[in-house]
Amino acid sequence: MTHKIAILGASGYTGAELVRLIATHPGLEIAALGANAKAGQSMSAVFPHLRHLDLPDLRKIDEIDFSAIDLCFCALPHKTSQEVIAALPRDLRIVDLSADFRLRDPAEYEKWYGNPHAAPELQKQAVYGLTEFYRDQIRNARLVAGTGCNAATGQYALRPLIAAEAIDSDHIVLDMKCAVSGAGRSLRENLLHAELSEGYHAYAVGSVHRHMAEFDQEFSALAGRPVAVQFTPHLMPANRGILATSYVHGDAAQIHRVLTEAYADEPFVHVLPYGEQPSTRHVRGSNFCHIGVTADRAPGRAIVIAALDNLTKGSSGQALQNANLMLDLEETTGLMLAPCFP
Amino acid sequence: MTHKIAILGASGYTGAELVRLIATHPGLEIAALGANAKAGQSMSAVFPHLRHLDLPDLRKIDEIDFSAIDLCFCALPHKTSQEVIAALPRDLRIVDLSADFRLRDPAEYEKWYGNPHAAPELQKQAVYGLTEFYRDQIRNARLVAGTGCNAATGQYALRPLIAAEAIDSDHIVLDMKCAVSGAGRSLRENLLHAELSEGYHAYAVGSVHRHMAEFDQEFSALAGRPVAVQFTPHLMPANRGILATSYVHGDAAQIHRVLTEAYADEPFVHVLPYGEQPSTRHVRGSNFCHIGVTADRAPGRAIVIAALDNLTKGSSGQALQNANLMLDLEETTGLMLAPCFP
Amino acid sequence: MTHKIAILGASGYTGAELVRLIATHPGLEIAALGANAKAGQSMSAVFPHLRHLDLPDLRKIDEIDFSAIDLCFCALPHKTSQEVIAALPRDLRIVDLSADFRLRDPAEYEKWYGNPHAAPELQKQAVYGLTEFYRDQIRNARLVAGTGCNAATGQYALRPLIAAEAIDSDHIVLDMKCAVSGAGRSLRENLLHAELSEGYHAYAVGSVHRHMAEFDQEFSALAGRPVAVQFTPHLMPANRGILATSYVHGDAAQIHRVLTEAYADEPFVHVLPYGEQPSTRHVRGSNFCHIGVTADRAPGRAIVIAALDNLTKGSSGQALQNANLMLDLEETTGLMLAPCFP
Amino acid sequence: MTHKIAILGASGYTGAELVRLIATHPGLEIAALGANAKAGQSMSAVFPHLRHLDLPDLRKIDEIDFSAIDLCFCALPHKTSQEVIAALPRDLRIVDLSADFRLRDPAEYEKWYGNPHAAPELQKQAVYGLTEFYRDQIRNARLVAGTGCNAATGQYALRPLIAAEAIDSDHIVLDMKCAVSGAGRSLRENLLHAELSEGYHAYAVGSVHRHMAEFDQEFSALAGRPVAVQFTPHLMPANRGILATSYVHGDAAQIHRVLTEAYADEPFVHVLPYGEQPSTRHVRGSNFCHIGVTADRAPGRAIVIAALDNLTKGSSGQALQNANLMLDLEETTGLMLAPCFP
Repeated sequence: MTHKIAILGASGYTGAELVRLIATHPGLEIAALGANAKAGQSMSAVFPHLRHLDLPDLRKIDEIDFSAIDLCFCALPHKTSQEVIAALPRDLRIVDLSADFRLRDPAEYEKWYGNPHAAPELQKQAVYGLTEFYRDQIRNARLVAGTGCNAATGQYALRPLIAAEAIDSDHIVLDMKCAVSGAGRSLRENLLHAELSEGYHAYAVGSVHRHMAEFDQEFSALAGRPVAVQFTPHLMPANRGILATSYVHGDAAQIHRVLTEAYADEPFVHVLPYGEQPSTRHVRGSNFCHIGVTADRAPGRAIVIAALDNLTKGSSGQALQNANLMLDLEETTGLMLAPCFP
Repeated sequence: MTHKIAILGASGYTGAELVRLIATHPGLEIAALGANAKAGQSMSAVFPHLRHLDLPDLRKIDEIDFSAIDLCFCALPHKTSQEVIAALPRDLRIVDLSADFRLRDPAEYEKWYGNPHAAPELQKQAVYGLTEFYRDQIRNARLVAGTGCNAATGQYALRPLIAAEAIDSDHIVLDMKCAVSGAGRSLRENLLHAELSEGYHAYAVGSVHRHMAEFDQEFSALAGRPVAVQFTPHLMPANRGILATSYVHGDAAQIHRVLTEAYADEPFVHVLPYGEQPSTRHVRGSNFCHIGVTADRAPGRAIVIAALDNLTKGSSGQALQNANLMLDLEETTGLMLAPCFP
Repeated sequence: MTHKIAILGASGYTGAELVRLIATHPGLEIAALGANAKAGQSMSAVFPHLRHLDLPDLRKIDEIDFSAIDLCFCALPHKTSQEVIAALPRDLRIVDLSADFRLRDPAEYEKWYGNPHAAPELQKQAVYGLTEFYRDQIRNARLVAGTGCNAATGQYALRPLIAAEAIDSDHIVLDMKCAVSGAGRSLRENLLHAELSEGYHAYAVGSVHRHMAEFDQEFSALAGRPVAVQFTPHLMPANRGILATSYVHGDAAQIHRVLTEAYADEPFVHVLPYGEQPSTRHVRGSNFCHIGVTADRAPGRAIVIAALDNLTKGSSGQALQNANLMLDLEETTGLMLAPCFP
Repeated sequence: MTHKIAILGASGYTGAELVRLIATHPGLEIAALGANAKAGQSMSAVFPHLRHLDLPDLRKIDEIDFSAIDLCFCALPHKTSQEVIAALPRDLRIVDLSADFRLRDPAEYEKWYGNPHAAPELQKQAVYGLTEFYRDQIRNARLVAGTGCNAATGQYALRPLIAAEAIDSDHIVLDMKCAVSGAGRSLRENLLHAELSEGYHAYAVGSVHRHMAEFDQEFSALAGRPVAVQFTPHLMPANRGILATSYVHGDAAQIHRVLTEAYADEPFVHVLPYGEQPSTRHVRGSNFCHIGVTADRAPGRAIVIAALDNLTKGSSGQALQNANLMLDLEETTGLMLAPCFP
């Protein structure tokens, strides 16, 4: 049996990545592609790499008939998403890839995003989409909120450690290296090849990046008290990948053990042998996350490094993994693509 | 039913690419991985991006039991391949990815490769592996010789045109731009990041690249008389992709028509709408080849540009496509992966 | 003695490159920087790599006092340039880097650029700025028109050959590989890192690129009859550099001799030993042009490859070389910077 | 007056960078180039980007006549350097770029480098080459030991802060992003373009990188007690640049003030306006170091980020700056080249 799905915001990179993944998924059929600004165009005009697929043309979202849709992916920009989703049929199941429903507390949302939430009722219903940790709730959710790509990477490295109190939650530094596709297909000077190639740099310095709000929410909930990490993202001259280097206080051997056990049965999160380092090239284009643990020479300190593909495990792959759960399909369906290296 | 396959030369890029593709192929099982220099190592030690797969360890080729193998991929270096294959069981079906069996004429082989062929009997049997043009022979072949990656790209652009006499075979210039993975994982100064990034240049200038021999053989056979194109490859600061820009004498509209008809039923070779240009990013990691045709302002001249991924359609994807035929599987099985963009 | 210069259009890449070069030029002082859209900003806000320099702030062009300026570089966009220059004091000497004054024939200008020229009188006066071939006229010119970067590269490879009739002017194919900075700092989707990295492709296919007009003008003048080359530019995943691969009919040894003699006394144009190939990394950031000559295996055919840095020898370095001549300075002053490799 | 210099180890990247810089230095003449493995070759054969220079051929070090040399740059590999320098004339002034003389304590040297020092007497004489902090000693030194490129970057960010006790020396995390040219021109798999492009990763994790020894030595001396920072380098898909992100405990405003005052009169070290971030593209190819300071949202914590070009300010530029001092030349001579961006 095939489930019909729609993708809203299909003209962006995460929309295209959803199509790429669904292209070899045996249980899903793309029935509608929404993209208001490019409505009327074919998908292959917007993304020529998808020209071999038989896809519906892009159309305006309010012209889509959702009655035949089993599940809707919403890959729209922040703020737009909440308005569009509020107007969708109430029984339509939704996987949202925007930031709009990640924060449970409306006050936190307003603090980080600068505007009151337009759909606070939906916000309450939404389940945080970090699959490995919200699996049961996701299965039954009507609305799943995909995580930030940086937020996912840092949480894979740290959640089991905070939960097990294997590290000191008051001393966590998260230094993150982020590929440029995370910024989307928008026309901004710092995303130009001539600016970025041979030009890496930090941004949102001072733990003020919006994905910070997710760390605050999730790590504090795990610890049962406020946890505030330090987090600095850096823009990399590369297209895909996030590498999160975490500096923690804790025993490296125990940290490795806790992480290894936590992910022992996970198909997509792999803890490397002690002392090995992950690399973004080893997860590129795949739904895998690799985690490495090494002791610092300073006793009681360790480095935990996680790598994943921001467009796959960090957003569209995660979304598909969640959709599989919601549709009662095998969770890994369509997601076992091996990384594309070199 | 699952066919057991072996991959000899699994520690190189084309070997790894075979494993990547076969990882989601429903009808093949990797039963043995041969790599003499790295025998004893696990595949994930050599290629950590494949660590999620349950693969046999690398072993010496002469320690592999071929009796249970249905088909053997041979991704060994040139010259090594012919010796290894000569020693394999006579009933084992083989897809070779090296240059050793591409040329039918032993004298041509010796001229281009500098040594007499070590297995001239096998050379006679081998079928040239450009699937779309040798499909029937491949189906029944015992030994299929994978084409050069440059040779494949140029032939997709030009074969139907030479066959249909839509272009003047005496005036063909093939300017090729080749990503670095085509040179393999060998340690050579010009393959270093510090040398290649921001440093593109021509090599094997003067139509002396060995893939030239394939153009000579194939184009001359098609034309029924000697055809000698001009061909210059250029090394690109990119990991995957070949872009072949062909300057031809002929009517662009007719050229577009001939190519469109020639590939109308082909699943992997796509002729773009007239005047559109292919890009390597639109085929990256996939088995597709895109071809664009545009008229030059000079009457009677046209530009035909083909793009493919050298590791996929240019070698390992082609090899798998041929294996599918040889094993009587659907030709496209495991090969419909969408390109990995961005 | 120091000459005071102004740079109009200082907020673009060629403007910044002029500042970079003039920074270590002993005879020039930057007295004014014009940039209408960014007027009021400091140069280091727009180009932080220039923050060590003591530069005037950017200001509106019509607020600049040109009475104290000895020479004005005009690095404005095409079409804007002709209007601005028409309004400048009639005795101000100007090196223009735009396309506006490259074509001597107003009809040709209108054909290629789509609008009638706004300053046809100035167009008549302008001297074409390919230094090595217009040196004497440049010395005494009031207005010098910098060449297109592709146009410069192709001409260095071919002018002496056409002039000496060492090649057949009816059979010239120019396949060009162009780094992205040639497109300027404009916000266009195809210039994004995520699009261009791992994605090279042809553009302006069919010999319709506007630099074509310069080839037509210059080569025809040299040959004394219409010469129309075929020219296809390709966008490279690199920031600086143009590599022009020319396929010509002629004797390679003679071609090498003609080029070697033509450039024997030139400080910036170097013909490599016969059979060696230039690479963009060997000219990066410098004012040098390297040219290689190799015979094709087809008798009577040869490949001539030229490499230069599009921002330096292809535009701003050329402009400074011309300014040196106009100001009666040593031609190489400030331009002997070695290439920045790796 | 011109000083004659020699460069030993001229066939590596730091040797080539010395030549690039000296090419426009008015007071130095390259009298000898030593490179044992490539002796007999011309410099332009090894580094074609230097072909415009009139340079002596490479020769064996023991064939160089040092009697006419005023100063010798030694850019040899670690361990080789100490043996070669021990054999040089005792009155020859030397700027060494290797690691051999950076550590004052022979026991520390042996601990980090694994062998007893071969020239402990020389080790005692050597002055640590971080110009801004050892200027007076360098002026009179016979042997100056160039710093590690990572070590330089971290020290520019942190030395004034440790000296002024503006930060807590027990809580310093140094996360470093290092371009590939820092690894030299050696043939190693992880330096290949196909491996590094789209593949960034940490290495020497656990504060075990050898440059760590310099941090230990210098920071402890400044603090008057043992200081041990945490330091993790990451290999970047870029050719030049180091970005050091330091996480420190201290008041950001005070930190900014201390750094601003410390470097107020320095020609090459620039502290950016509070809250601005440095980028490697803004120092590429230059001798400048940019430093940015930002407060973390966590009170009492700050981020200090330094960027420099590893080949210039991080090694060869530093070496030339020191040579200028030793030869009683203006310290900035030949070093005011503007960064090469884009």
